[in-house]
Amino acid sequence: MDFCLFKRLEEKTPLIHCITNYVTVNDCANILLACKASPIMADDEQEVEDITSICTGLTINIGTLNSRTIDSMMKAGKKARSLGHTVLLDPVGAGASALRTETAVKLMDEIDFTVIRGNISEVKTLALGSGKTRGVDANDLDKVTDENLESVASWAKELSKRTGAVIAITGAIDIAADGDRAIAVRNGCSMMGMITGSGCMLSAFMEAAVAAMPEERLWAVTQALCAMGVAGELAYDRMKAMNAGNSTFRNLLIDEIFNMTDEKLEKGARYEII
Amino acid sequence: MDFCLFKRLEEKTPLIHCITNYVTVNDCANILLACKASPIMADDEQEVEDITSICTGLTINIGTLNSRTIDSMMKAGKKARSLGHTVLLDPVGAGASALRTETAVKLMDEIDFTVIRGNISEVKTLALGSGKTRGVDANDLDKVTDENLESVASWAKELSKRTGAVIAITGAIDIAADGDRAIAVRNGCSMMGMITGSGCMLSAFMEAAVAAMPEERLWAVTQALCAMGVAGELAYDRMKAMNAGNSTFRNLLIDEIFNMTDEKLEKGARYEII
Amino acid sequence: MDFCLFKRLEEKTPLIHCITNYVTVNDCANILLACKASPIMADDEQEVEDITSICTGLTINIGTLNSRTIDSMMKAGKKARSLGHTVLLDPVGAGASALRTETAVKLMDEIDFTVIRGNISEVKTLALGSGKTRGVDANDLDKVTDENLESVASWAKELSKRTGAVIAITGAIDIAADGDRAIAVRNGCSMMGMITGSGCMLSAFMEAAVAAMPEERLWAVTQALCAMGVAGELAYDRMKAMNAGNSTFRNLLIDEIFNMTDEKLEKGARYEII
Repeated sequence: MDFCLFKRLEEKTPLIHCITNYVTVNDCANILLACKASPIMADDEQEVEDITSICTGLTINIGTLNSRTIDSMMKAGKKARSLGHTVLLDPVGAGASALRTETAVKLMDEIDFTVIRGNISEVKTLALGSGKTRGVDANDLDKVTDENLESVASWAKELSKRTGAVIAITGAIDIAADGDRAIAVRNGCSMMGMITGSGCMLSAFMEAAVAAMPEERLWAVTQALCAMGVAGELAYDRMKAMNAGNSTFRNLLIDEIFNMTDEKLEKGARYEII
Repeated sequence: MDFCLFKRLEEKTPLIHCITNYVTVNDCANILLACKASPIMADDEQEVEDITSICTGLTINIGTLNSRTIDSMMKAGKKARSLGHTVLLDPVGAGASALRTETAVKLMDEIDFTVIRGNISEVKTLALGSGKTRGVDANDLDKVTDENLESVASWAKELSKRTGAVIAITGAIDIAADGDRAIAVRNGCSMMGMITGSGCMLSAFMEAAVAAMPEERLWAVTQALCAMGVAGELAYDRMKAMNAGNSTFRNLLIDEIFNMTDEKLEKGARYEII
Repeated sequence: MDFCLFKRLEEKTPLIHCITNYVTVNDCANILLACKASPIMADDEQEVEDITSICTGLTINIGTLNSRTIDSMMKAGKKARSLGHTVLLDPVGAGASALRTETAVKLMDEIDFTVIRGNISEVKTLALGSGKTRGVDANDLDKVTDENLESVASWAKELSKRTGAVIAITGAIDIAADGDRAIAVRNGCSMMGMITGSGCMLSAFMEAAVAAMPEERLWAVTQALCAMGVAGELAYDRMKAMNAGNSTFRNLLIDEIFNMTDEKLEKGARYEII
């Protein structure tokens, strides 16, 4: 397959509406700009339909969920889909509270998402109504390994069939699946778990990817997974060379997306069809 | 004219109350500290009058606007003006949703702002009830160029006469205008559009500038425009030397304001009376 | 006493629930990850009890307080204490508005805090019902100096007796006190006051410290104070070597916590029993 994500992003510069948490929102905005998309954050019920109408895509992220914004998510999601926009769900912390689980399930039931991206615990919560979420991180028992890769890929494909969304499960090994195919991505490094927001940033960036190439959703998602992983690997090398720590790593990670090209991506990407 | 902004800021260390969006709020706080002002963020209706009373100036920024904070903006703005404080409006995304346009217009009608700062699309929306805003960025068709500079300056002066506020329109060429005079500022670089918050940070910093020298508002605004642009130019050079990207650029931009002096500002400033 | 904080944090990796302001929340999350704890931010009344139940500790920070989250703070604090979790109060800006003062006092009355951490003006407001807070910074008249050290230590011990909480007062000289003992910490540098969030970050980190070693609260708090100060000193040296400014300093400060060890801490710590 042809690595073309960054060329497409540069051509389309999609404007992405984000309804997201207040912890990592700044990083989400900066990574969207880094990949040549544009962010707009808006979460008031009175304006989300107006805002999403001028955009190409929408990310709904349920971190720091609150009663005020749940209705906004629902309204924006429905409006965006009615306009044919791509819409991504990041079910941050699904499984960690009844509010998050129920909201994520309700969003999934009522909105026809283009992509659902979470860690294995979060996606399992959505898929099976189970899964143990340790806060916003995946539970160790839920890890994707070479041993369970095929079975996880299999239920990810099932979930994709049921929801119509491309499913992206991220961790040491990432999985992307539509109803027919599943792909494993082996880029990235453990340092990405030592900053806040690597998942949220990936979701925002992934939404920009599918907005830029909606006709090839699975390949857009796969390239986004590879690109974020390659950026993490490059950022880690720079961090070590600087004797720096996690805060600098966060900046370097965004910087590497800013400086990413399809050539670098192709060279660094490690993925396989499962 | 005499470049004295940073000396004044150091002498007065104005405490600035910010009612602002949750995307760039941290950067706004850090740039206020960088220029030797102090930030305090508070947006609850029950406390905004108390908070603004202990401050010297107020910035109202309508990014991530929500119903809860609109009343707070109104209350704080009126209280601050009744105490003789300087108050700046940043109409982020005016034109992008009815809620933002109506709120910005209502704020402008009811509060006697000291400064209004936005991109050309946002300010046009306020001035003419038109303008096409592409999300939070200015629309290309609205660009300030050498060709339309005089006509933009002319309506900026009109808007200043009508509102009593100094008008600051930012873009590749910035314009500052009061009822009598207009100034064009040619500092800055396109990299400033590749991070989130360069406009919000400028607004916070500009409010500190007018709070530090309220008797010379137009000159305070002009110096703030030049200073932000010079900082952007210096930060860009450092970013390139480091092979870094937009996240690092954001840090370097704030750092350059931290290290700015009136001498550096005078040396780098490029402005002309229109 | 034995410097063991970072070993304990690494062993226990406590999950810390933060109800905190939207200005510095990202920095709080990253410093928790830097010290090998994990953050989860959640402030909706409907989920705070669920969320705090899966955690080890809770930080309540009243910056950008609003009516919606006050009830959440109360509920989460009571639930966390009922489960035996450690809970820290950071009364940001107490004294600056009636809402903040009353909320801080009410929280202190109804929740049995493990630690209360603030600047001298904030803690005085709680202790004496007086104190002049200049925004979120301590008032100069309130400064802890070698002259008033003993009297401040004495009322800190009283406040600890009254509340049952370890009291941490931070400034040029920090004080930690329980009912019996008071300790002065002389680490840190004035640069820490030139960024937003050094207090909020310290509170989040300090809560992780007591969550990791709840049986030795005063010693956990003292080590956290020393560690933050040593990190500040190291970060300042690196900032100067890079000709950088406050935004880079913020990143370096978190990086230094990321790279901190008990050996470095022991070497750099400057504290004395008062």
